[in-house]
Amino acid sequence: MAWSRLGLIAGGGDLPRTLARASRGEGRLGHVVALEGFADPADFPGASVRGIGQIGHMISDLRGAGCDSVCFAGLVRRPDFRTLKPDWEGMKLLPRALAAAARGDDALLQVIVSAFERAGFAVIGAHEVSGRLLAPAGPLGALAPDDAAIRGDIAKAMEIAAQIGALDIGQGAVVCDGLVLAVEAQEGTDAMLARVAALPESVRGTPAARRGVLAKRPKPQQDVRIDLPTIGVSTVEGAARAGLAGIAVPAGGALVVDAGAVREAADATGLFVVGLAPDALDGDGS
Amino acid sequence: MAWSRLGLIAGGGDLPRTLARASRGEGRLGHVVALEGFADPADFPGASVRGIGQIGHMISDLRGAGCDSVCFAGLVRRPDFRTLKPDWEGMKLLPRALAAAARGDDALLQVIVSAFERAGFAVIGAHEVSGRLLAPAGPLGALAPDDAAIRGDIAKAMEIAAQIGALDIGQGAVVCDGLVLAVEAQEGTDAMLARVAALPESVRGTPAARRGVLAKRPKPQQDVRIDLPTIGVSTVEGAARAGLAGIAVPAGGALVVDAGAVREAADATGLFVVGLAPDALDGDGS
Repeated sequence: MAWSRLGLIAGGGDLPRTLARASRGEGRLGHVVALEGFADPADFPGASVRGIGQIGHMISDLRGAGCDSVCFAGLVRRPDFRTLKPDWEGMKLLPRALAAAARGDDALLQVIVSAFERAGFAVIGAHEVSGRLLAPAGPLGALAPDDAAIRGDIAKAMEIAAQIGALDIGQGAVVCDGLVLAVEAQEGTDAMLARVAALPESVRGTPAARRGVLAKRPKPQQDVRIDLPTIGVSTVEGAARAGLAGIAVPAGGALVVDAGAVREAADATGLFVVGLAPDALDGDGS
Repeated sequence: MAWSRLGLIAGGGDLPRTLARASRGEGRLGHVVALEGFADPADFPGASVRGIGQIGHMISDLRGAGCDSVCFAGLVRRPDFRTLKPDWEGMKLLPRALAAAARGDDALLQVIVSAFERAGFAVIGAHEVSGRLLAPAGPLGALAPDDAAIRGDIAKAMEIAAQIGALDIGQGAVVCDGLVLAVEAQEGTDAMLARVAALPESVRGTPAARRGVLAKRPKPQQDVRIDLPTIGVSTVEGAARAGLAGIAVPAGGALVVDAGAVREAADATGLFVVGLAPDALDGDGS
């Protein structure tokens, strides 16, 4: 998708800051909308602050700054529709949004994406803003998953992640020695890993004897321009505390925020972080 | 299944105590094995204490007490096979148990159940020990789920629970306004409900404005003689703290430990607890 001037709709976490820096560095950042309650406006000088229902204002902000494209990035939770304060444009979307919300998160996101497309913006993914964000194929750090049990856990965790993704539950799962320890829904990956760390040591690994795997992958039906699974330093640290042996994502199908720091954290804690090529992804499933 | 003298293999939680009391009251309790690390032997006078790998000793204990049947009840976690101390009988099962463990919890449980069946015991479910434990059809307390949104959440939570059950992940799910808030794996229902209570109020209910539902149901492929889904007072209290409107289980397909106290807790906190008849169970799924 050709684009030259980006509007960034920023939610929580590190990803929006990374994208703002990358696109500003290339002279392609037009405007940032900091979503109220999710992004810290102090991180984005010149940003407008908008509530999640102020779709009309967001579109005006981006038009006013001459943007031809929009990227949605960072953590956003589904709003409480009863306390949402939509503007006129948001109000017009509300019936469709409510109907979509009952079908799931993906459907709801699609309603919002479509509104920006109808307003003439190219909707682009974070990986199109900065190609260096995509997980490469192969191990990111010094360690690789070469143990048969670990490969089995990777295959099973990837399979479970695909299944719960198809159900629109979430994108991540933790498997240890064939047992599904945890599945991610609305709590997020960090909370899921903290819960694995709280399980008895009989069912999980420890920093001294690592076992088990976190897998994250896109939902089969999702729009890959929005909400690609993301890992960062906090993911590696959480996985380390949970006693896991490593983290697996599809090569080209997940974002790695600050890959250099992720590599260092993985090597320092003795974890692997691996991007699986498509042929390795659904190969030896259990 | 005809039986007259019960051997109870007791894990954690209230259910084994309830079953011991019920069967002792009827003069049908032969012997209790308190599983080390899960059951408190002080709760079961005369019980033998056995590690989870001591299958041979458990069988001897039950035979010595003249038991013709065995019931597995209460919370047990998968053991760490590397630190398990199996006796001779347990050792003989180990290769099969390890192979089954890689396929999932149900397969692993089946290996243990089969060992007791081969030893000549009738394996009976907790609901066969005390029929009053089974969830009845209809509301247990004063409240019923009569709101359309709540009925939609019940249908979706039941559907998600069936799907994750088929994947051998777990038996429970929480859905609020069509959104899957949490799915239960190895952490257990109480931990899942605590996590829902920690989600932002935008996506969940509150004690002042309850919404969302916990559903628990058996895995489609599971042996209903072991590990039927269970609810008790702590489930109602956890659901109440999570702002949920209620709890749904299949009538005849879940155990209610101390139904009187569950009813009181539900009425006191303003939740419904409902047993769904089979025709209502997979009817209006979303």
